[in-house]
Amino acid sequence: MPVGTRGAVKAVRHEDLEALGAEIILGNTYHLHLRPGDDLIARRGGLHRFIGWTRPMLTDSGGYQVFSLARMCRITEEGARFQSHLDGANYLLTPEKAVDIQAQLGSDIAMVLDECPPWPAEESAVRAAVERTGRWAARARARHLSIKDAAPPDVLPTNPGQVQFGIVQGGTFHNLRAQSSDLTLEVGFDGYALGGLSVGEPSEAMYDVLDSSVGLLPEDKPRYLMGVGLPDDLVEAVYRGVDMFDCVLPTRNARNGQVFVRQGVLNIKNARYAEDDRALDPDCTCPVCVRYSRAYLRHLFVAGEMASATLNTLHNLHFYLDTMRRIREAIVFGTFDQFRQEFLQTFSRTSIKE
Amino acid sequence: MPVGTRGAVKAVRHEDLEALGAEIILGNTYHLHLRPGDDLIARRGGLHRFIGWTRPMLTDSGGYQVFSLARMCRITEEGARFQSHLDGANYLLTPEKAVDIQAQLGSDIAMVLDECPPWPAEESAVRAAVERTGRWAARARARHLSIKDAAPPDVLPTNPGQVQFGIVQGGTFHNLRAQSSDLTLEVGFDGYALGGLSVGEPSEAMYDVLDSSVGLLPEDKPRYLMGVGLPDDLVEAVYRGVDMFDCVLPTRNARNGQVFVRQGVLNIKNARYAEDDRALDPDCTCPVCVRYSRAYLRHLFVAGEMASATLNTLHNLHFYLDTMRRIREAIVFGTFDQFRQEFLQTFSRTSIKE
Repeated sequence: MPVGTRGAVKAVRHEDLEALGAEIILGNTYHLHLRPGDDLIARRGGLHRFIGWTRPMLTDSGGYQVFSLARMCRITEEGARFQSHLDGANYLLTPEKAVDIQAQLGSDIAMVLDECPPWPAEESAVRAAVERTGRWAARARARHLSIKDAAPPDVLPTNPGQVQFGIVQGGTFHNLRAQSSDLTLEVGFDGYALGGLSVGEPSEAMYDVLDSSVGLLPEDKPRYLMGVGLPDDLVEAVYRGVDMFDCVLPTRNARNGQVFVRQGVLNIKNARYAEDDRALDPDCTCPVCVRYSRAYLRHLFVAGEMASATLNTLHNLHFYLDTMRRIREAIVFGTFDQFRQEFLQTFSRTSIKE
Repeated sequence: MPVGTRGAVKAVRHEDLEALGAEIILGNTYHLHLRPGDDLIARRGGLHRFIGWTRPMLTDSGGYQVFSLARMCRITEEGARFQSHLDGANYLLTPEKAVDIQAQLGSDIAMVLDECPPWPAEESAVRAAVERTGRWAARARARHLSIKDAAPPDVLPTNPGQVQFGIVQGGTFHNLRAQSSDLTLEVGFDGYALGGLSVGEPSEAMYDVLDSSVGLLPEDKPRYLMGVGLPDDLVEAVYRGVDMFDCVLPTRNARNGQVFVRQGVLNIKNARYAEDDRALDPDCTCPVCVRYSRAYLRHLFVAGEMASATLNTLHNLHFYLDTMRRIREAIVFGTFDQFRQEFLQTFSRTSIKE
């Protein structure tokens, strides 16, 4: 899922996303709650209508941004109190409030509020977060179902088909992952996410967690790895049973001049590309590679032209979406193991040398 | 002509321009000469190949930007000495050098270096500029033809079909406009531009100049009014015989949240649009108006999303290009006078009230 934090995937248009084959995008509850506000969006008929996007959308709970962006964040059993990073206004985000906001936004998939401890953290702190996440999950589920049944007067749900996903925490502790899975499954959701990964731990530690914990989640519900990751992370996570991802890397790195190609990472600002007439990836069929040269793309980056962000983003999103398409195809044809081997042999996280 | 200063029309893609029906764009010689350099662009095969744009392009001479952007500009008979606004490096732009740079860029239409005095200016100063512009025109034409004949070793022309336009100066002095027309016609060019207008004088003063001086230029060559203008300026200038325009207004104003609609100007940042579900112009068929609401466009502007610049620019360029299409159609059908009357009755330069 490309990340469309404030109702727009940065630097590209909805039309571009549709042409690239994006089937679902993510919106950030924290940002949209603060501005323009989910009340205003609900009065517009919900987020789909407000932003003019007709395909599916997922919204997060806002918790992660509260912990990372907001000022003066204090977490209690009730929820998280914080000040807006925009104007310092005071807010309280509870499990119920996160449900209400998302009901008003009307995303197709709503996420529960969870507590995501920083990495590294003591086992006791992670256990406390797992247990609180479990209690919050029960509150969020009850609220979600009660709104479906009959919305309170101050909540205007805009998508009767909205489903809700639970989130498993537990850091890199296998026992806590198992405990969190039990707690979340006990509540029961329409899909399940793995949170608290890709927060600084080495990839190997993440793969270890996936090895032991993806299988604890039901095979017949979507399994979603939040905030991941680099291209090889996607392949490795699918290998371990994950179905869905979201990540800012393809879009954010694009704006920093970092584009992904099959061999690895290409830093377009590099002087070596000033007179390079080749496409970013000569084998790529994206709208950028079929038309523009590295020399031009470097010029746009150096000159600070907005088209630099746009074209790099288009290429990177194509790379990510195409990787996922190739993965699905390989699974259908029963050749995923071979695909994985070839992908990992070709792709390196370091900068390409030519 | 949409303005693509540094090889890109800001905030949109070439594909967008093509879809909007832009038949020609403008590139700025000053910017491209400084970065990435016309030598580099010539080695890439010229500006068309470098930026991946296959339709026509016009380049200016660089003079206007030297006078307005560069530091320490000193004009002599030889040309203009200046320091780059990027790094302070010293440059000399002569009439011949402006030809050479544009030969290397390989635009389809090259402009001569002229001297454009500020407004207001004494008649004597404007006369001196007219006479110098005449002498520079002769030097530029000779250089252009000599390069066509046989390029010197340090110039790599990239477009054998390039043509060259002369520029008429003379401020708002009718006698000097006539003198400048004579001088420019005496040299003889493939097309003729009116420079030194829309530099601060009232619109009526510009229309007066057009009334008296467009007719001095041959009807069978393109007549180009440089740097103009507001939508009603286009209609009034066509009425007076002008064929071509370039202007940053549709793109620059878009980035500032100012969009053009049939009734006038709409400031999308205005709070009145926060909950307005209508299109910018409900009758407009552009890709923005058929999909997005004022409420969403205001949100994007307030949030500082790049999509704000992109969508406003698309709408404004559509408005300008569509106005020109409607003008051409009215001329073909012999209804231009009626079109003009209706356009001017409908369009106001002030902000629309609802």
